[in-house]
Amino acid sequence: MADIRILTETELRRCVTLDLPLVDVIENGFRALADGGVVMPPVLSMAIEAHNGEVDVKTAYVPGFDRFALKISPGFFDNPARGLPSLNGMMILLSAKTGLVEAVFLDNGYLTALRTAAAGAVAARHLAPEVETAGVIGTGAQARLQMQAAHLVRPFARCLVWGRDARKARACADDIAKATGAGVEVRTDIATLVAQSQLVVTTTPATTPLITADMLHDGLHITAMGSDQAGKTEITPETLDAATLYVCDRVSQCATMGELRAARAQGRMTAPPPELGRIITGRTTGRTAAHQITICDLTGTGVQDTAIANHVAAQSGDAGTVIST
Amino acid sequence: MADIRILTETELRRCVTLDLPLVDVIENGFRALADGGVVMPPVLSMAIEAHNGEVDVKTAYVPGFDRFALKISPGFFDNPARGLPSLNGMMILLSAKTGLVEAVFLDNGYLTALRTAAAGAVAARHLAPEVETAGVIGTGAQARLQMQAAHLVRPFARCLVWGRDARKARACADDIAKATGAGVEVRTDIATLVAQSQLVVTTTPATTPLITADMLHDGLHITAMGSDQAGKTEITPETLDAATLYVCDRVSQCATMGELRAARAQGRMTAPPPELGRIITGRTTGRTAAHQITICDLTGTGVQDTAIANHVAAQSGDAGTVIST
Repeated sequence: MADIRILTETELRRCVTLDLPLVDVIENGFRALADGGVVMPPVLSMAIEAHNGEVDVKTAYVPGFDRFALKISPGFFDNPARGLPSLNGMMILLSAKTGLVEAVFLDNGYLTALRTAAAGAVAARHLAPEVETAGVIGTGAQARLQMQAAHLVRPFARCLVWGRDARKARACADDIAKATGAGVEVRTDIATLVAQSQLVVTTTPATTPLITADMLHDGLHITAMGSDQAGKTEITPETLDAATLYVCDRVSQCATMGELRAARAQGRMTAPPPELGRIITGRTTGRTAAHQITICDLTGTGVQDTAIANHVAAQSGDAGTVIST
Repeated sequence: MADIRILTETELRRCVTLDLPLVDVIENGFRALADGGVVMPPVLSMAIEAHNGEVDVKTAYVPGFDRFALKISPGFFDNPARGLPSLNGMMILLSAKTGLVEAVFLDNGYLTALRTAAAGAVAARHLAPEVETAGVIGTGAQARLQMQAAHLVRPFARCLVWGRDARKARACADDIAKATGAGVEVRTDIATLVAQSQLVVTTTPATTPLITADMLHDGLHITAMGSDQAGKTEITPETLDAATLYVCDRVSQCATMGELRAARAQGRMTAPPPELGRIITGRTTGRTAAHQITICDLTGTGVQDTAIANHVAAQSGDAGTVIST
């Protein structure tokens, strides 16, 4: 009845990479979210405790995009012991006019990693005015990608890395140096890293906060992207309160699985915070002076998935395998 | 990293058909739901009003099944004017141990149609003791499949069909006759059809009820499978109240999108009704006498999808296309 294009991770890596056009694509997703008309249901989340796993499904219809994505993200945390990655997944691209499946991206989480990093760059572009030194907390794949993405919009000269494991921090620093050309150094305590950075990105699955209010300083911007589940938190509620401006990707998501959740559980941050898309489109005032302190809480939205999936469709030409159904 | 098997609708039709083994597979799904340990999150539902469309995502982890399904069901109701079917969709089969995607079933809704019909047969097997005549309300694909499925477990001699459109009712009757070998007649009013049937299956997207309490008679069993969205209803609340026994596939779903929703909106049916799986496993008393009147409300569960998807995996051998990721 229809042709469905299947692309593997290898094929997707050839079509789409972390670059400025992708950052613009994701920024357009945030704009669309602010423009209204977006339909973004709550994340479908299923825990499989018997196998220490979970699966999340995100989707969003975005007016102006011909197709919408539906993304499946499994996380199975006993996988590393089996020699398999914890995170996986795929995206499905459907026509927004007919609901027909147009493509299946067997990306093993690659597109999610890219769109998450690109969202970090969007936040830096709009909230981190001057970045000589960027700091990253955490040493995983997103630590590398967040710094690579931030460097596209704020080409910092120096980068600082903190991680619990010194060897992993060193390896992460080396990779960031290679990807960005910046001078990259490891810091053994978070307070020093934050003190020396104008942009800090937190990328950990921490369940007790790493950043405290006493670390804040004039001109600092923090993007917190690690917390994407109730129970995770990287920044104390006092820190959110103490910042000049706290911004969400989506308030409803941050309140249930971002930094806002823990703050509200303590009775703080009760007023509705602004969303990044409203700042990008000028509907809400963002940072107004270089000395202000800003925090952006990114939980990851279905809009970002729809944005990157449409970008892939535009970029992939006749790559992949076509299956006629 | 892994091999993913892709099967098209044509390939799936060769592997899996509506037969007694499939009815048993779906019955085992209902059993598992009653046995406990099933994780079945609420349906993810997104309406795209701009294009008169919607998409639903269902999933369920069922202990004892090695894999779980994630099903995407789009319904786009302007499609027929474009020469396309309204309903579509696909299923993804993931390992319950690792979360890895094992197979993609590009079934265009075929597996959903089968598992929905098989659930009707399960309800008939446990709640409709003697069926000389079966009646079906509605003339779509499910009307045909429901009668075909019911005939597997209750090989009725006569079948009655009612539809708003006489020509469609005639065509549906002819198809049911061909599939079951029963004598099939069209009835022009619902009351007559119900009066002459021991089993009635309602398969319409009605938003005002078609079956009223005065139509009930001794020995009748009704399976209502049309209502799967808030706003749809095929049976009046008084009718549910008047039956000896009202049974849900899943109470939480029936209360939000099945017949129970409208009844509770009127303050009726406030006690928790039994679920079909608990009757099958003997945990709850079902029908205890031939003269009783029973109603089963089927909204369709992720457990049924996981059950049929595992069945397909077991049946499909090396059919389809394998993509190495």
